[in-house]
Amino acid sequence: MKRSKRLLDIQNFDREPIYKMAALLIGFTFLLLVINVFQKGLSGGVGADKHVYLEIVFLVLLAVLAEVAVFYLKQQSAVTLMLLGILISPSFLTILWGALGSVGIPVEGAPLKIFEHEDVIHTFAQLGAIILLFKVGMHSKIEKIFSGTNMFVAVMGVILPFALGYFYASYTGGSFAYAMFVGAALAATSVGVTVAILKELKVLDKKFSEVIIGAAIIDDILALLVLSIVINMTGVPEQNASIVLTFITSAVFIIGAILTGKYFIRYMDRNDMSNKRFLLAIAYMLAMAYVAEVIQLSAIVGAFLAGVVLSKSRHYEYLEKSTLGLELIFMPIFFISLGLLVDIVSVAAYIGPILIITLIAFVSKIASSIFVGIVDKSFSVSDSAIVGIGMVPRGEVALIIASIGLANGILTQSEFSVISAMALLSAFIAPMVLAYFIKIFGTAST
Amino acid sequence: MKRSKRLLDIQNFDREPIYKMAALLIGFTFLLLVINVFQKGLSGGVGADKHVYLEIVFLVLLAVLAEVAVFYLKQQSAVTLMLLGILISPSFLTILWGALGSVGIPVEGAPLKIFEHEDVIHTFAQLGAIILLFKVGMHSKIEKIFSGTNMFVAVMGVILPFALGYFYASYTGGSFAYAMFVGAALAATSVGVTVAILKELKVLDKKFSEVIIGAAIIDDILALLVLSIVINMTGVPEQNASIVLTFITSAVFIIGAILTGKYFIRYMDRNDMSNKRFLLAIAYMLAMAYVAEVIQLSAIVGAFLAGVVLSKSRHYEYLEKSTLGLELIFMPIFFISLGLLVDIVSVAAYIGPILIITLIAFVSKIASSIFVGIVDKSFSVSDSAIVGIGMVPRGEVALIIASIGLANGILTQSEFSVISAMALLSAFIAPMVLAYFIKIFGTAST
Repeated sequence: MKRSKRLLDIQNFDREPIYKMAALLIGFTFLLLVINVFQKGLSGGVGADKHVYLEIVFLVLLAVLAEVAVFYLKQQSAVTLMLLGILISPSFLTILWGALGSVGIPVEGAPLKIFEHEDVIHTFAQLGAIILLFKVGMHSKIEKIFSGTNMFVAVMGVILPFALGYFYASYTGGSFAYAMFVGAALAATSVGVTVAILKELKVLDKKFSEVIIGAAIIDDILALLVLSIVINMTGVPEQNASIVLTFITSAVFIIGAILTGKYFIRYMDRNDMSNKRFLLAIAYMLAMAYVAEVIQLSAIVGAFLAGVVLSKSRHYEYLEKSTLGLELIFMPIFFISLGLLVDIVSVAAYIGPILIITLIAFVSKIASSIFVGIVDKSFSVSDSAIVGIGMVPRGEVALIIASIGLANGILTQSEFSVISAMALLSAFIAPMVLAYFIKIFGTAST
Repeated sequence: MKRSKRLLDIQNFDREPIYKMAALLIGFTFLLLVINVFQKGLSGGVGADKHVYLEIVFLVLLAVLAEVAVFYLKQQSAVTLMLLGILISPSFLTILWGALGSVGIPVEGAPLKIFEHEDVIHTFAQLGAIILLFKVGMHSKIEKIFSGTNMFVAVMGVILPFALGYFYASYTGGSFAYAMFVGAALAATSVGVTVAILKELKVLDKKFSEVIIGAAIIDDILALLVLSIVINMTGVPEQNASIVLTFITSAVFIIGAILTGKYFIRYMDRNDMSNKRFLLAIAYMLAMAYVAEVIQLSAIVGAFLAGVVLSKSRHYEYLEKSTLGLELIFMPIFFISLGLLVDIVSVAAYIGPILIITLIAFVSKIASSIFVGIVDKSFSVSDSAIVGIGMVPRGEVALIIASIGLANGILTQSEFSVISAMALLSAFIAPMVLAYFIKIFGTAST
C-alpha cells in the first residue's frame, strides 16, 4: 500500500528533494524513449498498422510549422504548406539523399519513406478541401454565383486558355490529341488554393472574391464540357460521355441542390441543434461532394453547394464553430499533399516547356479576365486583374485531366509530366502573386 | 444576359407560377440523380477513389440512425452502433443474401460490399477511440489513477480471469499454448466501450467510474506483462520481449508523460489560444497515442495520458469545445467498426465454447472486483459490482492478443474464432448490463 501512496503524489514527485533526481531521470528516459520510438518509426521499424499515427502526427506538426512560418515570415499558409509538401516529397528526398551521399555524409539505405498509407492521407486531404469549400459556401450567396459577369469571366477563361494551349502545343509539334489535352488542362480552374488565400486575407466579401468563386464554379462545368468534347474527339474508349448529357446533369445537380436544399433547411431548423442534426449536416456535405464527384464535377463543388444551402439555416453559427477543429486539422493536409505530388525530377528534365506552358497558364487566364473588366462596366479593371490571377491555379483539376490522358495512352509520360508540373506550379506561384496584388489594389475595392 | 438574370433568382424560382412546374421537375430529376448515383455506388459501379466518400457518408448516416435509436428506443448509442456494425458486416450480409435468395427474392450477384477502404475506415475508427479517451483524460485527475483500490482491482482482475481461462481451456483438452492465450485474452480489458457508456450516462465523476478507468489503465500494463510472459513461455519466435523491460518501458512512459507534461502545459499557457496551439495539442495527443501503441500499450492509453496532461491547461475549455466535431464524427465509426469485425458464421459454428468462455469473461472480472469490494473498506460492494461489469469488455485488446497467436501459428483458426467472438460479445453485452446496473444502483453512490 505504501508504494501506491507514493504514486498518488506523482505530480509533486519532484518537489521532494530525495525524488528530484529520480524525476529528472525518468523524465529524461521518457524523452529518450519518445525519440527512440520516432526514430524507429521513421526508419521503417514499426508495423504498418501503427505507422499511420506517425504519418498523421507528422502532417499535423507540419501544419504547426506552417503556422509559425506564417507568423514570422509573413507567408501565406497555403503556399508554405505546399512548399513543405515539396520538401518531403519522395522525389525531393531522393535527390537530397543523393546530395548528402555525394558530400560524404553517410545516409543509410533508401531515403526515408514517411507516407505508407497514401489512401488515408489522400482521403484526409480531400476532406480538408471539402470542409474548406463547405465553409466558404456558408459565406456565399446563391444569387451571386450565376451573375452575368461571372458567366462572362468563366466563358472567356475557358476559350482563351484552351485556344492558346492548343496552338502552342500544335506549333511545337505536339499531336492533335496532346494539343487538345493541353487546352483542356489549361481551361480548368482549381479554386481551393485561391479561396484559402482570400479567406486568410479576410477579403471573401469583396466583389472580386465573389467573381472568382462564382466563375470558378461555372468554369468547373465548362471544363467538364470541354473534357467530354476532347474525349469524344480524341477517342478515349470507355469514357464516351455525351456532351449534352454532361451539361444537363451538371445543371440539374446545381439547380436541383439549391431547390431541394430549402426542404433540408426546413427540417434542420424545426428543432434545436443536436448531435443528430450536426451529423446530418456533415452527411449532407459529404453526400453532395460524393454525387458531384461521381457526375465528374469536383467534390468541392458539391461541398460548396452544401455550404450555400446550410448558410440559410438558423444553426449556421453552431455549424461554423463546430467544424473549426476539422478544418484546422484536415485543410493543411490538402495543401501538403498537393506539394507531395510534385516530381521535381521531371520538372528539372522538362523545365523549358514547363515554364512556357505555365506562362501561358498565367497570361491566358489574366488576359481573359481583364478583357471582361474592360467590356463589362460593372467590373473594375483592377478587380478583373485580381480575378484573373485568382483563376490561374489549375491544381488537381488539371491533374485529373492529364491522368485521364495518361491512363488511356493518349499522353506520353513526359507529356503528362509537363501538364502536371504546370498544374502544380500555377497553384504554387499564383497565390503569392495574388496576395501581393490584393495587398496593393484589393483593399480599396468594394 | 437575360438567361443569367433569370438564374439570378434561382432561389425564388418556384414562386413564379410559370416556373413552378420547371422547379418541381428539376427537383425531382435531382433526387433521381442522387438516388441513381448512390445505387451505382452501392453496386460497385463507381471507381475506388470516389467510393471512399460513399463509405464515410454511410458511416455518418449510421451515426445519425444511432442517435435516433438512442432517442426513441432508449438504447445506449455505443451498443446501437455496434449492432448496426454487425448488421452491415460482410458475414451477416452474406447470410442475408442467402436467405433472401432462398425465399425467392432475386438478389443480384454477390452481397453488396460497402467498405473497400478498410485502411481508411480503420484509421477513422482508431481516431475515434483516441479522441474519446483523450476527452475522458481531460476530465480525470492523475492522483486518482494509481490509488490502492485501483491497483487491487487491476491485479485481481488479471489473476482470476487468467486462471479461470487457463483451467477451462486445459480442462476441455486445449493445448498448453492455447490455454495460455485464452488466459491472456481474458485478463485484458478494453475500456473504450465502457467509458462511452459512463460518459453518456453522465456518471464519469462517480467513484466507480474513477476506479474503472484507473484500474483499466493499470490492467493494460499488467495484460502486457502477461502477454510477454505467455509469448516467452509458448515460444512465439520474433516477439521475444523481456518481461522486465516491458514493465520498465510502460512505467517510464506513464510516469514520464505526466512529469514532462508540466513543461508542455507551461508552453501552451504562455500565450492566448491560437490555431498553432490547437494543432500542437492535437499533435501531442496523436504522438502520445503513437508511442503508447509502439511500446505495445494501447494507443488509447497514450491519448488518455495526453488528455490528463492537457486538463491542467488554461485553454482546457477551448480544447474541449473545438474537438467536439471530431468526436461526433469519428467516435461512432469506432463502435461501428467493432461490430463489423463480428463474424457471425464462426459464432454460430462454435456457439457452445463461445458462450461458456464469454460467461467466464463476465464472472471472472465481476467476481474479482467484488472480492476487492469486500476486502477494501473504502470501496462499497455495489460500486465494486459496477466496476466489475465495467471491466468485462475485452474488445480490441483481446482481439490483438488472439491475432498474435493466430499469426504465429499457435492458435488454430477455430481457436482464434472462439477468442475473438468472446472479445466482441463481452464488449457488446456488458454495456447493456452496465447501463442497467448504473440506473438501479449507481446514481445513489458518490
